[in-house]
Amino acid sequence: MSITLGPNQHGKAEVRLVKVDRGTTGSGATSHTIHDLNVSTQLRGDFEAAFTDGDNVHVHATDTQKNVVYAKAKELGVTSPERFLLDLADHWSAQPWVTGSVMKAETYSWDRIPANEHSFVRRGQETRTAVVDRDGERTFVLSGLTDLVVLKSTGSEFHGFPRDRYTTLAETNDRILATSVTAWWRWATHPDDWDAAYDKVRAILLDTFAEVHSLALQQTIYEMGRAVMEAVDGIAEMRISCPNKHHFLVDLSPFDLQNDNEVFYAADRPYGLIEAALQRDGSTEPDAWVSVPGFA
Amino acid sequence: MSITLGPNQHGKAEVRLVKVDRGTTGSGATSHTIHDLNVSTQLRGDFEAAFTDGDNVHVHATDTQKNVVYAKAKELGVTSPERFLLDLADHWSAQPWVTGSVMKAETYSWDRIPANEHSFVRRGQETRTAVVDRDGERTFVLSGLTDLVVLKSTGSEFHGFPRDRYTTLAETNDRILATSVTAWWRWATHPDDWDAAYDKVRAILLDTFAEVHSLALQQTIYEMGRAVMEAVDGIAEMRISCPNKHHFLVDLSPFDLQNDNEVFYAADRPYGLIEAALQRDGSTEPDAWVSVPGFA
Amino acid sequence: MSITLGPNQHGKAEVRLVKVDRGTTGSGATSHTIHDLNVSTQLRGDFEAAFTDGDNVHVHATDTQKNVVYAKAKELGVTSPERFLLDLADHWSAQPWVTGSVMKAETYSWDRIPANEHSFVRRGQETRTAVVDRDGERTFVLSGLTDLVVLKSTGSEFHGFPRDRYTTLAETNDRILATSVTAWWRWATHPDDWDAAYDKVRAILLDTFAEVHSLALQQTIYEMGRAVMEAVDGIAEMRISCPNKHHFLVDLSPFDLQNDNEVFYAADRPYGLIEAALQRDGSTEPDAWVSVPGFA
Amino acid sequence: MSITLGPNQHGKAEVRLVKVDRGTTGSGATSHTIHDLNVSTQLRGDFEAAFTDGDNVHVHATDTQKNVVYAKAKELGVTSPERFLLDLADHWSAQPWVTGSVMKAETYSWDRIPANEHSFVRRGQETRTAVVDRDGERTFVLSGLTDLVVLKSTGSEFHGFPRDRYTTLAETNDRILATSVTAWWRWATHPDDWDAAYDKVRAILLDTFAEVHSLALQQTIYEMGRAVMEAVDGIAEMRISCPNKHHFLVDLSPFDLQNDNEVFYAADRPYGLIEAALQRDGSTEPDAWVSVPGFA
Repeated sequence: MSITLGPNQHGKAEVRLVKVDRGTTGSGATSHTIHDLNVSTQLRGDFEAAFTDGDNVHVHATDTQKNVVYAKAKELGVTSPERFLLDLADHWSAQPWVTGSVMKAETYSWDRIPANEHSFVRRGQETRTAVVDRDGERTFVLSGLTDLVVLKSTGSEFHGFPRDRYTTLAETNDRILATSVTAWWRWATHPDDWDAAYDKVRAILLDTFAEVHSLALQQTIYEMGRAVMEAVDGIAEMRISCPNKHHFLVDLSPFDLQNDNEVFYAADRPYGLIEAALQRDGSTEPDAWVSVPGFA
Repeated sequence: MSITLGPNQHGKAEVRLVKVDRGTTGSGATSHTIHDLNVSTQLRGDFEAAFTDGDNVHVHATDTQKNVVYAKAKELGVTSPERFLLDLADHWSAQPWVTGSVMKAETYSWDRIPANEHSFVRRGQETRTAVVDRDGERTFVLSGLTDLVVLKSTGSEFHGFPRDRYTTLAETNDRILATSVTAWWRWATHPDDWDAAYDKVRAILLDTFAEVHSLALQQTIYEMGRAVMEAVDGIAEMRISCPNKHHFLVDLSPFDLQNDNEVFYAADRPYGLIEAALQRDGSTEPDAWVSVPGFA
Repeated sequence: MSITLGPNQHGKAEVRLVKVDRGTTGSGATSHTIHDLNVSTQLRGDFEAAFTDGDNVHVHATDTQKNVVYAKAKELGVTSPERFLLDLADHWSAQPWVTGSVMKAETYSWDRIPANEHSFVRRGQETRTAVVDRDGERTFVLSGLTDLVVLKSTGSEFHGFPRDRYTTLAETNDRILATSVTAWWRWATHPDDWDAAYDKVRAILLDTFAEVHSLALQQTIYEMGRAVMEAVDGIAEMRISCPNKHHFLVDLSPFDLQNDNEVFYAADRPYGLIEAALQRDGSTEPDAWVSVPGFA
Repeated sequence: MSITLGPNQHGKAEVRLVKVDRGTTGSGATSHTIHDLNVSTQLRGDFEAAFTDGDNVHVHATDTQKNVVYAKAKELGVTSPERFLLDLADHWSAQPWVTGSVMKAETYSWDRIPANEHSFVRRGQETRTAVVDRDGERTFVLSGLTDLVVLKSTGSEFHGFPRDRYTTLAETNDRILATSVTAWWRWATHPDDWDAAYDKVRAILLDTFAEVHSLALQQTIYEMGRAVMEAVDGIAEMRISCPNKHHFLVDLSPFDLQNDNEVFYAADRPYGLIEAALQRDGSTEPDAWVSVPGFA
């Protein structure tokens, strides 16, 4: 009786890659395209000694496999997910000790926000929400949405913040700004058509996100809320909560590649979290907000 | 020192309501509309004795609160979520011991599939997937999608199945058919344009789902796959996995209401699960399917 | 060129089965055992006509497959998951047109609460939580826990609630009571040892859940909070939120089997939701609760 | 009519902090303690200009708030979550423009694996799994587990792997090794007691994880499987899949602090993924593995 190693593979799973193509339209304006992928890469080959003896001399580190994903996104671009996976497979077939590979990708769809060529909304993610809170004679109606995921591939800066011994963040004049909007609005007077009102608020949120040149996510949130309340009289106050879904520029310099704001790592956690209330004439009904889940 | 009961409420959370409006268009054809909500209902009032003494004489059961959601969907219809929640609040304000209520709803969006007036696809849920599996000289390319959620509000039957001592399911000539399609297709020859090929397959899947009058989810799956493979020569085989997302007709007869295929409870678990492979000329490459997650 | 049906299977996925064995100990006291499974059952065989022609004459309905899970749990009992799956496979091997089957189970562990022989806690599910909210000179400290899943296999009743035209729920003198406790407590004076304080509160919550003969989940919640506050002086107020995780008795009468409170279907949604605050001397600090997520 | 900014806050959510206390026991052996927290930090104060004018001169960056979490974990240690949050609140109260703060933490429990003082298992996370796959006369029985989360705070190295232009990973002689084990084992002969067999396999997996001094996660996986198969004759083959749940050492040098393998960032994605099969006498039954979800 002997126990032997059978089929095995090693690699890096769920490499979150966002690649921005910064092209130009016929009229010379910039027009961006977003490629948003979740890539997994695994290798098969002569790797048995790592299992049986802890000998890594053949083991292409999973960290290296991740680096290849980002470097190839720059070197070759991302046209379709299939083409990109074939490119990755080609790269690894040419490396020593590799006899096979499995490359996988999930790809997420973004729709362009009509306001400009560099603002996008994740297709169909948001959920419409509503709360009615009645206590005796008074009734609060809150409408809202959650999981409205939006992204700008340019038009966002962040600088001028205080620096102390715990500050390491670099200032930037051009970053990706991405968030998942949760918003609630309280109606002082009810609209005639609730569905039309929802569509109007949603459209203003998207347009304002696209149009505001952002110096801080705080500013974008405030302008989004203000635009809604200026356009819709019946809304007395709003609350908006936005995670800053960080897209970190990948450092490609170890691979002698320049990253001109093209290749990003979309991080899960931690994330910035910005929350604000807006009020017409400074008035609020704190009791209206008790039942809104997860709002500070 | 005394310990007293403070604010409290009780109710039913996450009542999954699907309401189908079966209208007619100007030309006399039927045109259906889907209202898909997740409703939570909670009551405040003179309910202290339930907490302090286990005395339920004032406690409107959470089961009753659920029943009211379904009954009111039939009695009053669902126009907007806000209007529906206000209707629920009105109902409960008129009941004894109730001094307040909180009603909440999440609402999910469906887009019409162009093929007819009673087929729908959940907005933007699906994820495009791809796998490249290379072993030495041979390379398999699988393309796919997951979480493509579709629903037909009519045009689906299920009957003629065997009955034994464990069979309790009634036969039906008109049911809601809803599923979340996971599909994979293996390319024998690669398309020139991977993105266009994906769009074409997705469109055929949707159209066929809409157009096939279904006698079994099995039949719908087979026809979806066959239509794709007849239209796209490069595809050598497909695998399709579809949960049967049950929509149970709510029994409204205890409330003296008739449910003409209008008010449904969308169940989470368990769900039917139908899986099938389709092959051109009966040939398959079993090794190509090893890396496809979760396929039996 | 021909397109043919390849391997296929159909069945019911994620049948949530809770089986209570109601034995007796040596000393004659009752001692219950919980079997908590998520079962999936799939059949292979002569089912091609359902795919190609929508002909269901051979199709053992997925609903029937679900019924068999519940009926066999009663007829044969659940010893181990493997033995139970083999029993299911044996059943289906004896049916016409079936040539193969795949049976799967996930099994969840419960630990006995020492207080008695019929109270249980899901192993290691809970997360300890804490919030510090400071505004100028005042600081609120909230400690808490979430996802503490508990179950009593007897010792719970629910009756005496009002009945109107929307009430269909039957009264019961013996039901499963199961919930997932979320609790927060505000400290007026800080304990010397935060970790010991947490352990003490958690133990009191569990013991009280086990020991209170429940006439309503409301009563159980209130007694749990009261016991904590009577034992721990530093706590000024508590909030407890408990979903009523319904375990419905499966109707086995169509199969000529009697269900003596043994075989249950654990439902996902909807669920009852009971929330309450407890206050020492009736005083509360509403500002302390603004940051607690998801509390009405 | 004027629209004004109301309450607002900004901060960093879900900072995943793992702090290892490396103490010694009475007998001089090292005894480690794990603090595993998910910390969120938010500030209130004079931050209005960021919203209304995009002026960040007062805005303590959310990145800085994250840095403070890690630096304070080193400077002050983590005793209880409440004490740690109070320390964070104290820090921020002393900074300009801050008038209030909200600090939150979730804390996860780990149990010590008896084999040594630096190996741990997340309390009660795992699910026991089973599959029976029958085709005519042959029956495969697979037993397994998933989500068995384990961690070693020392006793793990990784070096000697190949370096090329895409390799940036540093070699290490002492790292945290953490994974979530998914394992399946196929029975050639059935055990008398399925439950006892499961308990035995689970115990061997834990002990071997603790006892093997790891030169690669590959080696650890192989030794875990080999130990099980040497101890349990009835098992013919095993498959083990382990994500490498990366714990990155936080760079504290910008804060003039030394990180002696104490303060870690627990990353979500991407993660290494190592998968292997073990076979007795090199024999396998490929058909037995078709139904195992998500195994490459």
